[in-house]
Amino acid sequence: MRRSRPALGILGGMGPLATADFYRRLVTRTPADCDQGHLPVLMWADPAVPDRSAALLGRGPSPVPALVEGARWLKRAGARCVVVPCNTAHAYVEQVSKAAGVEVLDMIRAALRAAADTAPGVHRVGVLATPGTRAAALYERAGARLGIDVLQVSARLQSSCVDPAIRAVKGGADPAVAQQRIATAAAALKEHGAQVVIAACTEIPLISGAAARIVPVVDSTDALVDAALSRLWQPPPAREVRTGRRIA
Amino acid sequence: MRRSRPALGILGGMGPLATADFYRRLVTRTPADCDQGHLPVLMWADPAVPDRSAALLGRGPSPVPALVEGARWLKRAGARCVVVPCNTAHAYVEQVSKAAGVEVLDMIRAALRAAADTAPGVHRVGVLATPGTRAAALYERAGARLGIDVLQVSARLQSSCVDPAIRAVKGGADPAVAQQRIATAAAALKEHGAQVVIAACTEIPLISGAAARIVPVVDSTDALVDAALSRLWQPPPAREVRTGRRIA
Repeated sequence: MRRSRPALGILGGMGPLATADFYRRLVTRTPADCDQGHLPVLMWADPAVPDRSAALLGRGPSPVPALVEGARWLKRAGARCVVVPCNTAHAYVEQVSKAAGVEVLDMIRAALRAAADTAPGVHRVGVLATPGTRAAALYERAGARLGIDVLQVSARLQSSCVDPAIRAVKGGADPAVAQQRIATAAAALKEHGAQVVIAACTEIPLISGAAARIVPVVDSTDALVDAALSRLWQPPPAREVRTGRRIA
Repeated sequence: MRRSRPALGILGGMGPLATADFYRRLVTRTPADCDQGHLPVLMWADPAVPDRSAALLGRGPSPVPALVEGARWLKRAGARCVVVPCNTAHAYVEQVSKAAGVEVLDMIRAALRAAADTAPGVHRVGVLATPGTRAAALYERAGARLGIDVLQVSARLQSSCVDPAIRAVKGGADPAVAQQRIATAAAALKEHGAQVVIAACTEIPLISGAAARIVPVVDSTDALVDAALSRLWQPPPAREVRTGRRIA
């Protein structure tokens, strides 16, 4: 894409609905009042990228070759930087960024900073995440660098509430039960002292409405959208705004 | 994308929210129960593609070079066929398809066939579209080939209801007023004998809820999604389905 404005690359498909949700939020959170005010976007969404949690738990092949292929392709196509709207895949993004030679924005850090910014004095943050994100200690390690304590749910709540809720979104199941499961897990985190809970898997913001009535919830998807906009977005030149006022 | 399953190319950005809506509907209408059951997708969404209506009305530059660039890029990246979730751009898709050497699915024909399929005996279809789609007579010409009469709203309703409603979606304005405007236009089409109304601009399905309570509304976006799925989707091999039951 040889455009005057830099393009955002989306390395997606993990899962597809979470990627669609990321793109929709990117558009609706962009301060543009016409088509031409939005970011150019390139997307590579291969839902057959090997399962990230399975790989991190030593039960499946590495997703790295597929992710590097996608990132290289986005770079060649003209992406200035890349987002990966999948928390679990962040166990691999540093490696992918180096191999492909393209900047990859850090969703984990963005979500933790957004959580810390919700109110003064936030230092204890609950996390709802996949087994892979937990196994790789992605939030714990980033939290230590930012001075934030990270709480996880018990193994029992992980397998009875969080895991089936994520699977329900990926499988296109009725979201009502999944909503309730995420609310139960969020309530437990609050009880153990979490001041804020991060929906730290991009499927969870799609079912976090009930949880948000119990405890402040920060969506990792929104945090990544905001990081992308603050990295790339700028108001379009006046001429483009005028042209954009026409419709099509 | 060198995958075993064929990838769909989305030539989007016209407008960005309509493209995001197309991708979300593609995911939710896919009969998959895990990530790996979904279509691989490549997207090129440049919202700076010159305005299609302006070009068709002789008031702006042609969007063809930008569209051909996008279609070529999607083909090189491995897209088996391409969708353009913008009705107005269909004035150019035959030319783009030939120049880029890639199949482009026909949204206009898909929407008209979906309208005809809503009930036996449908032969008079109302259309809510942009000035460009009207000027190029896209629906009228395709309707003639399918034996369907196509009705448009009056010039007054076009400029007082349809145009501002589309602009409201593109500009991120409150959708309530736009919903009402589209309902008013749909009611007028019904009064003039339309048995079904096509939301024939990909912004309109985002604000057609009130209209659908007055007259059956066929979304051109859904029609294009279904055309893409019937062209490319196939159940994944059993092994992939099993792997996909894990989460990430």
